[in-house]
Amino acid sequence: MKHDLIEPILIGGKWQKAESSDVFQAWNPANGEKIDRLFPVSSWPDIEKALSEAEKVIRPLAQSSAEKRADFFFVLADWLEKRREEIVAQAHLETALPVEPRLNSVEFPRLVNQIRQAAEALKEGSWCQATIDTKLNIRAKYGPLGGSVIIFSPNNFPLVFNSVCGGDFISALAVGNPVIAKANPSHPGTTKLLSEIALEALKQVNLPPASFQMIYHFNSEICFQLITHPTVAAIAFTGSRQSGLKIKEVAEKAGKLVYCELSSVNPVFFLPGILKEKATSLATELFASCTLGEGQFCTKPGLIVFQNDEAGQQFLNQLKKIFHTVTGGYLVSPQVLEKLKTEVERFKNEEAELLVGGELIPGPGFRFAPTLFSIEGRKFLQKSLTFQTEVFGPLTLAVLVKDIKEMFEVACALNGNLTGSVYLSDSKEDELIYSQLEPILRLKVGRLLNNKMPTGVAVTAAMHHGGPFPATSHPGFTSVGLPAAFLRFAARHCYDNVPNHRLPIELQNKNPNGRMWRLIDGEWSRGDIKI
Amino acid sequence: MKHDLIEPILIGGKWQKAESSDVFQAWNPANGEKIDRLFPVSSWPDIEKALSEAEKVIRPLAQSSAEKRADFFFVLADWLEKRREEIVAQAHLETALPVEPRLNSVEFPRLVNQIRQAAEALKEGSWCQATIDTKLNIRAKYGPLGGSVIIFSPNNFPLVFNSVCGGDFISALAVGNPVIAKANPSHPGTTKLLSEIALEALKQVNLPPASFQMIYHFNSEICFQLITHPTVAAIAFTGSRQSGLKIKEVAEKAGKLVYCELSSVNPVFFLPGILKEKATSLATELFASCTLGEGQFCTKPGLIVFQNDEAGQQFLNQLKKIFHTVTGGYLVSPQVLEKLKTEVERFKNEEAELLVGGELIPGPGFRFAPTLFSIEGRKFLQKSLTFQTEVFGPLTLAVLVKDIKEMFEVACALNGNLTGSVYLSDSKEDELIYSQLEPILRLKVGRLLNNKMPTGVAVTAAMHHGGPFPATSHPGFTSVGLPAAFLRFAARHCYDNVPNHRLPIELQNKNPNGRMWRLIDGEWSRGDIKI
Repeated sequence: MKHDLIEPILIGGKWQKAESSDVFQAWNPANGEKIDRLFPVSSWPDIEKALSEAEKVIRPLAQSSAEKRADFFFVLADWLEKRREEIVAQAHLETALPVEPRLNSVEFPRLVNQIRQAAEALKEGSWCQATIDTKLNIRAKYGPLGGSVIIFSPNNFPLVFNSVCGGDFISALAVGNPVIAKANPSHPGTTKLLSEIALEALKQVNLPPASFQMIYHFNSEICFQLITHPTVAAIAFTGSRQSGLKIKEVAEKAGKLVYCELSSVNPVFFLPGILKEKATSLATELFASCTLGEGQFCTKPGLIVFQNDEAGQQFLNQLKKIFHTVTGGYLVSPQVLEKLKTEVERFKNEEAELLVGGELIPGPGFRFAPTLFSIEGRKFLQKSLTFQTEVFGPLTLAVLVKDIKEMFEVACALNGNLTGSVYLSDSKEDELIYSQLEPILRLKVGRLLNNKMPTGVAVTAAMHHGGPFPATSHPGFTSVGLPAAFLRFAARHCYDNVPNHRLPIELQNKNPNGRMWRLIDGEWSRGDIKI
Repeated sequence: MKHDLIEPILIGGKWQKAESSDVFQAWNPANGEKIDRLFPVSSWPDIEKALSEAEKVIRPLAQSSAEKRADFFFVLADWLEKRREEIVAQAHLETALPVEPRLNSVEFPRLVNQIRQAAEALKEGSWCQATIDTKLNIRAKYGPLGGSVIIFSPNNFPLVFNSVCGGDFISALAVGNPVIAKANPSHPGTTKLLSEIALEALKQVNLPPASFQMIYHFNSEICFQLITHPTVAAIAFTGSRQSGLKIKEVAEKAGKLVYCELSSVNPVFFLPGILKEKATSLATELFASCTLGEGQFCTKPGLIVFQNDEAGQQFLNQLKKIFHTVTGGYLVSPQVLEKLKTEVERFKNEEAELLVGGELIPGPGFRFAPTLFSIEGRKFLQKSLTFQTEVFGPLTLAVLVKDIKEMFEVACALNGNLTGSVYLSDSKEDELIYSQLEPILRLKVGRLLNNKMPTGVAVTAAMHHGGPFPATSHPGFTSVGLPAAFLRFAARHCYDNVPNHRLPIELQNKNPNGRMWRLIDGEWSRGDIKI
């Protein structure tokens, strides 16, 4: 192939020819054909250049003002909006996610909204949790890590979780860390477009052009060399459990911080009272959540639990009906499709009962029928880990428990998850069951929902998109919800006996902007310190 | 040996005979002889019992009120005070740290003070960072991990860092996690005494007696089985880099949270101006810090950097004089002594120049002469990692740089450290050097000090005792400073669409005590929420 047909990578603020060992193409999931742009698989010299450029900007970025980083985000959001149509079209081409409402009216607005939230948080300043003990003159705040952050992004959100302009990108840069982004191979063209816009925005505000760099692909050996490099401080990974665990192991052994979002089945418990009241509408609600984005959400309800009584049977019948609905969507890649087929076979072999679906939908593109399995509580408990591997795509397993005691046993057998939902009525019976189920579930999940499906993750201060292992690698951190998500990429910077004029402005006696919250001698305050 | 002479371990709230594979004795460092109590090295059945008992209390502890856990701490502090003499005497016997001022007037007061600080923080409640978005009804706070916390404590602080009643213990329990404490083999008798008191305090307030358990020792194979057990959530380790890294690797691979404090050389930079002004008093100050606790502090200045000019030479001469002072102290174990001897030989072999000390002090007990090495900046830079291994004991390496440029190079070559200090005058010259040195040092250390030695770590809200790898395993967390230290053992618990009556009291509309700070729609407030 001719070298000049291969897409360039972004190193040191310049689009450069990659030293590629191979090339790849993205798929158009709607017709199942490869898109004809060639993207490089980088060799070590590319990575080495990126690391070297990133190292040069570690201190300049750390010293850049929060104002300037905020300006970058404001400019970025504006410029993304100017090219909205183009971005949406490109993401649609590579993922076949619907333009409306998904890409244009849901994901794109969230993309620019979260960038602007990050900008506002930087301008306001409270995110850094400035803490000041005046008597001893000890002061601390969060600040940058002193190394690069490597971002691996997932295939399912081409915009809001993109390794460029997505949540991890803005969190790492907000704190003042250089970013090296690896594109997801499902949507390299989208990542390139976002990178072009972000690079121009960087230049516009005079931040170092190497503040972020972008590489499309590399093999696992090079990956391990990258993530263990002395100048790397942290890694953010969202993707398959298998790859994530390997990256986690290698990077943590080298002393790096690793934030992995690995897998989650997002259990939903339906208590007996509510099933008696509204089985039909609940079935509709569940189906909508399971098939949102063709089930390619990390918060997809992959496991539902209810009692196998009359109301439960009626609910199951409703589910069987509605799972026959043919959705119009596509899976983002042939790999997702293949994995789904394999998992369906595995579920069958493990003696879960296939109730609906389980097959490809014939015709062009990567399509799979909504799939419903069921299993008795007793059998689930015998091999509960087997049935707790996340399956991407429109597949859900119903666990039919013989009584409430068995429901609690199922809850006890759960692994760590991003979310756990309980649907219940206001009846005394359901409240009593809830009061016993909640303490079990609470310790297994990051976000606990009542009468609400887990898909749909609002970007708001109290949101938590995280959970105990193996959902993520640290249950104290969130990847969605600003400014909390910044803290993954922050070190605590303490100043002991440092006079006022040598302190960063956030910790000086005068409140830097009159509105930043600071914890002064145990009291949150927006005031100045009078010494 | 007769089984009934071996000290019992604390499992499930009862002092039980250990299933020991071996026994060990602690040393009296003052006479170099073994103390005649026998402590067991536990086999797996002991650990299994402890894990099983801990598992039973995970949920009861998680559901216990913060008030009750605070009461436990208040009772504990009172009861420790009642047995102060006995505790101090026991710690003195096993460590030979001076009764006055160290154990009785510094460490013991800090022990009870930090326990009471933890109690106050629990009563007040702000530690959990309750965050409430009223419009969407999404609410979050920190809560327990849902598994046990295993604590490995260091040899150098028999009270405040003891795995029972010390900082990690109170942090893990404050959040509501069960603790399994491993005694440090240097002071098992002290740990037993603290355990006896803590157990009675638990019973007094009706917390589950298995809330904490204590085991003296086990081999590394059993250690790895313990820390990777499914019911374990987190590990706190303070000790040698080698053991810590192994524990970190094994536990993290199994998805556990690991907080290691591994090693730190705590660089101190002396700028030219201040050396001209007060070389003599600085030498005295440095020597006091280097030999505090016989240099067995994790914040001991192990590396000092200054310019090899006239003032620098004068400073070095002062240091040489004062390092000849014979301190009266002891090293806590023969292992520390042996390691120190080995490291002195290694420094010599690596061509650092031995200026003072470097030898055992003859006579009974574990004593070593204050030791000062020097090396040229150029040579240091050639093998900087070699000279950045922490050496426990009264040893310091002076790096003599030829100019300020070389001083910056030394700073750039530094690994992550707990602290970094700069001594400077108010002269323009020093301020200018500082403005260039600070951005380098800031990203390498947790706590940055001006004109102050790093030893002496105040337990206060803004304190940060942590730092970039390899000082610790996560630069965002601190092991000293309350309530920040709690957060190492906390998961974020988010509630989405959960009605008021099902929320934990910290997140309900009414402020639970009228004084807890909560972040409500972006504003820190002590008020109720009006819906």
